[in-house]
Amino acid sequence: MILTVTLNPALDLTYTVPELKRHAVCRVSDVRVQPGGKGLNVARVLRSMGTPVLATGLLGGSTGEQVRCLLEDKAVLHRFAPIEGDTRRTVVVADKPGVTSLWEPGPMVTDKEWAAFLALFNGLSASAATVVLAGSLPQGLPPDAYATLIDMAHANGALTVLDADGLALRHGLKAGPAVVKPNAAELAAATGLSIETPSGAAQAAQLLRADGARTVVSSLGSSGLIVSTTEQTLHARPPRSLNGNPTGAGDAAVAAIANGITRGAGWSDIATDAVAFSAAAVVASTAGEVCFDTARDIRPHITVNQLPGV
Amino acid sequence: MILTVTLNPALDLTYTVPELKRHAVCRVSDVRVQPGGKGLNVARVLRSMGTPVLATGLLGGSTGEQVRCLLEDKAVLHRFAPIEGDTRRTVVVADKPGVTSLWEPGPMVTDKEWAAFLALFNGLSASAATVVLAGSLPQGLPPDAYATLIDMAHANGALTVLDADGLALRHGLKAGPAVVKPNAAELAAATGLSIETPSGAAQAAQLLRADGARTVVSSLGSSGLIVSTTEQTLHARPPRSLNGNPTGAGDAAVAAIANGITRGAGWSDIATDAVAFSAAAVVASTAGEVCFDTARDIRPHITVNQLPGV
Repeated sequence: MILTVTLNPALDLTYTVPELKRHAVCRVSDVRVQPGGKGLNVARVLRSMGTPVLATGLLGGSTGEQVRCLLEDKAVLHRFAPIEGDTRRTVVVADKPGVTSLWEPGPMVTDKEWAAFLALFNGLSASAATVVLAGSLPQGLPPDAYATLIDMAHANGALTVLDADGLALRHGLKAGPAVVKPNAAELAAATGLSIETPSGAAQAAQLLRADGARTVVSSLGSSGLIVSTTEQTLHARPPRSLNGNPTGAGDAAVAAIANGITRGAGWSDIATDAVAFSAAAVVASTAGEVCFDTARDIRPHITVNQLPGV
Repeated sequence: MILTVTLNPALDLTYTVPELKRHAVCRVSDVRVQPGGKGLNVARVLRSMGTPVLATGLLGGSTGEQVRCLLEDKAVLHRFAPIEGDTRRTVVVADKPGVTSLWEPGPMVTDKEWAAFLALFNGLSASAATVVLAGSLPQGLPPDAYATLIDMAHANGALTVLDADGLALRHGLKAGPAVVKPNAAELAAATGLSIETPSGAAQAAQLLRADGARTVVSSLGSSGLIVSTTEQTLHARPPRSLNGNPTGAGDAAVAAIANGITRGAGWSDIATDAVAFSAAAVVASTAGEVCFDTARDIRPHITVNQLPGV
């Protein structure tokens, strides 16, 4: 079983409007409501792949209850710890040709709530082959929250995949996660290097490995991804760039990675799957969803090359 | 008891952002969640006045459940009929110096749900001295929905106050409500006249009276309000215009009107109260709330003049 951790989930509202005009009334023509947060997107992709998955994390208030109901609608198994604060909403207003996002600040988590989650997580991770930790930390949690969870997961014999940013990533690295999956911007922010080329990404990834990550998978959008392990550096790339919604492509890649390391696949296979499912997420209209036809069609055309050691 | 009817309530989310930038991510610094819809604002003002009030209407889905919980937090008695569709949200994004509003379309109400509400309303209005019908109609309801309710309320011996716009107002007039309360824009839309002056408003009000309204109270913002009855035309005005948030001022006026006609007050008194509570709502930051100190302080300085008959 793969356990996904979402400490700061959201109720994602996507509004379609003809045009977002500032200081005016905009009538929303279409409303989509989705469970949000990277870990929940990963769980939904794994679930649609048919991989056994359990979603955990923190949920609170009536908005948290709405997220819970949506997970049930989508048949995603879950076991969340309750918090007093309200789970946040994100409002994405889509007008041609772009989107405007409104991000609520999210709840404040108390020490007691965090301690209760750690006890729950300890039990759940003991039954997990792989634990995915993805997304931002809510207010109130220590910046090394992911490191604590990774240590616990490792003590329970699970593999770990971390998809985080900024301080949460930097602290998480120290616990030696099996895989971290930064995108180019996160890799640049974490290392201070500018990521212009695949070999630049490979170099930056070495720094994250020196800081504790066993394997770094850097996602570079339409340039594919770079896998940096102790033994090799691979560059997997799609045959072409796809039109669509890149939101959720990274989450689909994380799902493929977690699935691959759980079944003991080689990195060339895993990288190919991760690129295929990223493409399949770009074509799907919503984060957390993938188009299986796209994944199947594109897979034979994905190239994987060894990069020279850096 | 005053019964308020809100057929298209909302969960009102107010987001404070430094600046709403189109096609960017805006982090929300403050989130306010309120029960929304004109009828619910009227109910909240009446409740804070200490007047016995019951809120009814249609609520559906998990967003409807959130509205119900908020009414309980605010100790507003309620008895809503359930619907299958989801109660809408409205998102108001406040940045200096204005607000941008996103209005969800709201649920579709079925004939069966409407019939069930009519049965509920018939029972509730039999115990009501006055019925307030305020706000827009959800999709699926006939345009004469308010006329049906007004007929039923009158048959049950209740007085009626209608605060509606467009077709819902035009159809509602035919049932002869005791009071309608258009603002200048609604009065202009309903009559085709331009409302530039208090006497212009009085003339337009005569047309609404000819169409069935017994008394018309036209709210004209900082110019106060015009009361047009069979016997007289009154102009009540505040001593000065107040800075603040005009949203909800009309609802506070409706609350004062409903309160006044219920206790059999004269129109000069009612008009004074309506102006005082409108001002008290402008000073309060949120629709549905009023500042009692403002109402008390401003009341002695409100002037009421007889306008020549039109």
